[in-house]
Amino acid sequence: MYLHAVNKHNKNSMNLIIMRKLFFLPAILFFGLIACNQTLDEADMFKKISDEVMSNGEAYDILYDLTKNIGNRVSGSTGYDKAVEWGAEELRRAGADKVWLQPVIVPAFERGKESLKIKIGNQAWNEVKMLTLGNSIGTDGKDLTAEIIVVNNFDEFEALSEEEVKGKIILFNYPFDQSFINTLEGYGDAVRYRFATPPVVAQKGGVAVFIRSITTAFDDAPHTGGTSYRGSDIKIPAVALGAETAQRIADAAKTTKVTATLNSNAKMNEDHLTYNVIGEITGTKDEQVIVVGGHLDSWDVGEGAHDNGTGVTQAIEVIRTFKNLNIQPNHTIRAVLFANEENGGRGGRVYADTLEAKQEPHVFALESDLGGFTPRGFNLDLSPEKEKEVRSWLPLFKPYGAAVFNNGSAGVDVSKMKKHGVELAGLAPDSQRYFDIHHSESDVFEAVNRREHLLGATVMTQLIYMVDKYW
Amino acid sequence: MYLHAVNKHNKNSMNLIIMRKLFFLPAILFFGLIACNQTLDEADMFKKISDEVMSNGEAYDILYDLTKNIGNRVSGSTGYDKAVEWGAEELRRAGADKVWLQPVIVPAFERGKESLKIKIGNQAWNEVKMLTLGNSIGTDGKDLTAEIIVVNNFDEFEALSEEEVKGKIILFNYPFDQSFINTLEGYGDAVRYRFATPPVVAQKGGVAVFIRSITTAFDDAPHTGGTSYRGSDIKIPAVALGAETAQRIADAAKTTKVTATLNSNAKMNEDHLTYNVIGEITGTKDEQVIVVGGHLDSWDVGEGAHDNGTGVTQAIEVIRTFKNLNIQPNHTIRAVLFANEENGGRGGRVYADTLEAKQEPHVFALESDLGGFTPRGFNLDLSPEKEKEVRSWLPLFKPYGAAVFNNGSAGVDVSKMKKHGVELAGLAPDSQRYFDIHHSESDVFEAVNRREHLLGATVMTQLIYMVDKYW
Repeated sequence: MYLHAVNKHNKNSMNLIIMRKLFFLPAILFFGLIACNQTLDEADMFKKISDEVMSNGEAYDILYDLTKNIGNRVSGSTGYDKAVEWGAEELRRAGADKVWLQPVIVPAFERGKESLKIKIGNQAWNEVKMLTLGNSIGTDGKDLTAEIIVVNNFDEFEALSEEEVKGKIILFNYPFDQSFINTLEGYGDAVRYRFATPPVVAQKGGVAVFIRSITTAFDDAPHTGGTSYRGSDIKIPAVALGAETAQRIADAAKTTKVTATLNSNAKMNEDHLTYNVIGEITGTKDEQVIVVGGHLDSWDVGEGAHDNGTGVTQAIEVIRTFKNLNIQPNHTIRAVLFANEENGGRGGRVYADTLEAKQEPHVFALESDLGGFTPRGFNLDLSPEKEKEVRSWLPLFKPYGAAVFNNGSAGVDVSKMKKHGVELAGLAPDSQRYFDIHHSESDVFEAVNRREHLLGATVMTQLIYMVDKYW
Repeated sequence: MYLHAVNKHNKNSMNLIIMRKLFFLPAILFFGLIACNQTLDEADMFKKISDEVMSNGEAYDILYDLTKNIGNRVSGSTGYDKAVEWGAEELRRAGADKVWLQPVIVPAFERGKESLKIKIGNQAWNEVKMLTLGNSIGTDGKDLTAEIIVVNNFDEFEALSEEEVKGKIILFNYPFDQSFINTLEGYGDAVRYRFATPPVVAQKGGVAVFIRSITTAFDDAPHTGGTSYRGSDIKIPAVALGAETAQRIADAAKTTKVTATLNSNAKMNEDHLTYNVIGEITGTKDEQVIVVGGHLDSWDVGEGAHDNGTGVTQAIEVIRTFKNLNIQPNHTIRAVLFANEENGGRGGRVYADTLEAKQEPHVFALESDLGGFTPRGFNLDLSPEKEKEVRSWLPLFKPYGAAVFNNGSAGVDVSKMKKHGVELAGLAPDSQRYFDIHHSESDVFEAVNRREHLLGATVMTQLIYMVDKYW
C-alpha cells in the first residue's frame, strides 16, 4: 500500500459523528441544548480517554515487566506470589487511593519433570513434545508404557468395549473446527475433550488420556489447560500432545501398533495461601463499587501474556487513566486482579462471597480475559433495562472499533458476582489469533501488539466512564 | 481464559440470524415465501463459502510459497518476474478458465549498497540502520558528509533560512501520531514527510533529506516507501531512519552538532517490460467483468507479505473458491495481480486504459491492499444507488466480522477504473498492526495469521458472489 489509498482515506467515524452533530446543530439548539451538550461532552471525553491511553498508556510497558521479569505464574508458585507484589505496586503507581490484598486459598498444581516417548511399529522410540494437563496426576516419576488407541471423538470412544480400553492409553484426536468464525465457539466445541475425558477413560480401565491440543495453529506446540476427574476416585494421567504429533500417531495407528512411555512428576501440592490484588479510586458521591478486572495467575508455560497479562494491565490502565485525566468518579472504581482463575476460580469466588458480608453494593463489573487483541465490542450479561441503556451507547464506541455488543458471558471471575445482582460485561477482542497461542509456550509478550492492547484498555475505560456517570 | 467463559459463549450472529428467521417463519411464509428463501439461500451460501475458505483455503499456503521461495519483488527485479510466473501458475491451479499476461512498462528502482554513519559531537562515528526511499537517487557510491539539521515538521522547516539549510542534511523527525484509531489516517498525516520533502529541501540548498520512518512500532527498523521530486530538476538523496535513531539524533542536536556520512548506490535503471497477471472464470450469462485484485509487486525489503502478498493470494482464493464450490458466475470473475503499485501505479493504469479500447464492460472491481489482518468491513467507492444496495447486505457480512462499510478509497490499482464508471470497493482489515511492519524488513510471512488472512478472503468471495448475483 502506497500513498493514494489515503488520499480519500476512511473518515474517522468520530469526526463523522461530530460533523453530523454540527450539521444538525440548529435543530438541536432548537429542540434541546442540554441533550446536545451531553452527547458532545461524551464524544469529547471518549476522545480524551483514547488520546491518553493510545499516546501515553503504560499497560504495554508494565505487561513487558510482568511477562519478562516474572513470567508465568500458576497458582501456588513463587511466580504468582511475586506477581501479587508487582500488582500492588503497579496499582499504587497508577494512582489508586487504596491498595490491599484479599486472602485466597488456592490449589497448587506442580508439573515437575515430564517426558513422553512414542514407538510406531518397529521404528525407534521417539521423544515428542507434551504437556501434562493442569490438575492432572502424573506417574510418580515412573515409566508408564502402554499401547495407544486412537479415537476421533466421544462416539468412537463409546463404541469401544472395556476389553479394548483396558490397560491402554486413549488418544482423543479431535481437531479444532476451523469453520467457526468466533474461535471461542470452536474452543467450546473442543474443550470437552480436555476437560471431561479422564474419568470416562478410567472407568473403562484405560491407564492414561492423551488429547490433541486445542489449537487453531498448524504446528506441534502442546497446549495445556485444566482437566477434571469430576470427583472420581480413579485418577489417570491426562496429557496434551501437539496437533501434528497427535495426527501422526492417528495416521500410524490405522495400520500399526503405536506405543507410548509416559513419565510425569505432575502432582497437586498442599493448598496455598495467596491473594487477590485490589486497588481503587474512592468515589466522590457514594460508596457503590464498579469493578474492572482480570486474572493475575496463568498456566505454567509461556509468559501468560494474552492469558491474562493483558487483562490485568488493562484493568490497571483504567485506574491510571482516571487519575491522569483527573476524572473524579461518582462511584468507587476498583481494579481487581483475581487469583486462581485457571485451575480453580477461587479468587473470583472469594471476592464475590465477600460482597454480601460487607454490605458493599456493587453496580457493575467488567472483565478482560479473552486476550489483548483489537477490540470488537463487549459481551453483555445485564438486566434487560441496563442492556438497553448500554446498547444505546454503541455509537460512541464504534469509532474505537467496539462495534458489536453481544449477550454472553462476561468472564469466569466476575460471573461469580451475578448472584448478588451485579451487572456484568466482558471485553470482546477479535478471536482469530487467541487459540494459536493460548495455554502454550507461545503465549509471550511478543505475541501482543501494543496498539491492539491499548485500544482494549481505551474502550474498557470508556465503558467504565459511562457506567460511572449514568448508573 | 479457562473453561466457563465458553459455557455461555457468544452466539454466532449467523445462528442468531437463522434463529430469528425460524422464529418469524410463519409470518414470512404468510407475507412472502420467495423473499425468505432468497435470504436463507444467501446466508447458506455465505456459510458454504466461509466453510470452504476457512477449512480448505490455500491462500495462506501459497503466500508461504510466494514470500519464502520468491521473497520481495520490486518493479524491474528478477523477483517480480519470477512472481509473474508464480501468479500465472497459481491462477491456473486455482481453476481459472483462462490465464494471460498483460504487458506493463515499469520503472526500475535499484537500491544497491548503502550505508549511513552518524557522529554526535565528539563521539566516534556510528553506523546506523537506514533505507534509501524508493525512487530516490543515491550518492553514486561516494561519501556525502554534512551536518544534520533537525526539524519536527514543515512549519519548522519553513522557518529556516536558505543560509541555515544550504549544504545541510534536513531530518524531518515527525512521529506517527498514535492517537489516530484508524492508523491509515496516521499514515496519511505522516506520509507527506516521506513524499513531499526532497524538492523543498533541495530548493533551499539542502544536500539530502532524512525522514523518521513512518511506523507505529517503537523500534529502530527503517521503513522505505516512495518519494518524489515532483518534476524538480535538482534531485537530492532521501533516506528513512529508524524512529529510535531519528529521535536520538533529534535529542542530541539540541545541544551538539550531529554529522552524517551517507553512501548510497540507489538509482533508477531503464524502464522494464513486465506484466499484470490475469486469470478468470468465464461468465455464463454475459461478458461483463467483475475484477478482484491486489498488487503483485512489493518493496525491496522484507517479503512483501502483508503488502501485498495477502491481497494477491486472497484474489486467487476467490477464483479457487468459486471453482471448488462449483459456483457458475453470471459475469466473468477476473483476478488481476497488478504490476508496479508501489512506485508508479502503472499496472493499474494500463489495465484501466484497456477497458475503453476493448469495449469490455466492467461491473465492479474489488481490491485488497491494506494487509491480511482480520476483516472489519469494506471501503466503498460506489454510485449512490449501488452503495444503498451494498449497505443492505451488511447483515449478511456481520457474522464474518465485516461489520463496517465506510465510504472511501477502494485502493490505488482499481481506482484507475473509476473514470470508466466501474463501481469500486476495497477490503478494510483491522489497521492496528499494519504500520508496525509496512515497507520494512518485518513484513514477512510470520507476521500474517492464517485465520485472519483466510477470513479476509472469505468476505471478499462473499461480496463478489453477491455482486455477481444481483448486478
